[in-house]
Amino acid sequence: MYILCSDLESVFLPELWVEIANETGIKDLQLTTRDVSDVNLLMQKRITSLRENGVDFETLIQIAKKSEPLEGAVDFLRWAREMMPMIILSDTFWEFVSPIISKMEYPTIICNSLQVDKEGFVSGYNLREDGKRKTIEVLQQAGLKVITVGDSYNDVKMLEKADKGVFFNASSEIVQQFPEFSSVNSYEELKLLIKDTINSK
Amino acid sequence: MYILCSDLESVFLPELWVEIANETGIKDLQLTTRDVSDVNLLMQKRITSLRENGVDFETLIQIAKKSEPLEGAVDFLRWAREMMPMIILSDTFWEFVSPIISKMEYPTIICNSLQVDKEGFVSGYNLREDGKRKTIEVLQQAGLKVITVGDSYNDVKMLEKADKGVFFNASSEIVQQFPEFSSVNSYEELKLLIKDTINSK
Repeated sequence: MYILCSDLESVFLPELWVEIANETGIKDLQLTTRDVSDVNLLMQKRITSLRENGVDFETLIQIAKKSEPLEGAVDFLRWAREMMPMIILSDTFWEFVSPIISKMEYPTIICNSLQVDKEGFVSGYNLREDGKRKTIEVLQQAGLKVITVGDSYNDVKMLEKADKGVFFNASSEIVQQFPEFSSVNSYEELKLLIKDTINSK
Repeated sequence: MYILCSDLESVFLPELWVEIANETGIKDLQLTTRDVSDVNLLMQKRITSLRENGVDFETLIQIAKKSEPLEGAVDFLRWAREMMPMIILSDTFWEFVSPIISKMEYPTIICNSLQVDKEGFVSGYNLREDGKRKTIEVLQQAGLKVITVGDSYNDVKMLEKADKGVFFNASSEIVQQFPEFSSVNSYEELKLLIKDTINSK
């Protein structure tokens, strides 16, 4: 049986940290895993920037709540979940996505979580180290074949591990760097690729 | 981070084989994993009964399509998926649940699949041996804490493996036999238990 594992941001939602950067005007927060592959380094930068600029956890949640799924995402999520089980594997934080999960019709999202200090500022995070790749590996151990979808450097390890790895709306730079993966730029193309993969078993 | 893993039939849907038994009038099909703990034995009996009575795959699908989620199931599924990621682990078959997954608002269901012969009869199945327990184990390896919900003998191994095991609407016999697990009889009770479990971490 196949299972679909996909990244979240830039695939079904806008990049939440870019939204936060735009709303707060803090330029350093524009950086995402598309730009910096080391998530720990990226998170340390973010925590420092937020604290320096006096942006607390509650402000972040209010910004996250304004996010809307990308155009066509909800339809795709319905289609995919009628085809096979699906899990979204993301480096985002549960605190950001749980308030908007109803807008996506409650997909299963496995991600990280934030720590907040007494003054209400983000002070740390619980990261499942290499969580995306590990989750793919263990689903395979449980007897499933995995199709994975991602767009950036932090998805490469899970794409490598999967039975079928697909880039979705990825930069031409990363697509060229990893020619072993398929690359699509719309939900329609992604649907076709998924159907082909399942039927060629 | 917590993840919720639950059984499907008798928790969110009626027992599909009981529905099939009622619709076809084949008494042998009344047996479920509540009665027979050996899934392979149970499936062999089912396949033989269906063939002997001339009930083909398409007839089964038409019966399955009539199934409706249990009262309150859809609301509970929304609530749970806003609390944490959730995966349904079931010994049912994807061919039966995919046509009605939209009625449950597309939860992630990992289950088995059927084989159909040229004459259109069920001839076999692909079973992930001990799939429920293995999946719990591998999710824990991926760094997640697991709450599991089930109602019958085929759930016991996954309840044992979980960080928190819960019987839902289980028979008093099985509840007494496994006093180490919590036991609830309504979605409201289940919600309270889940909240307590998460908050006591």
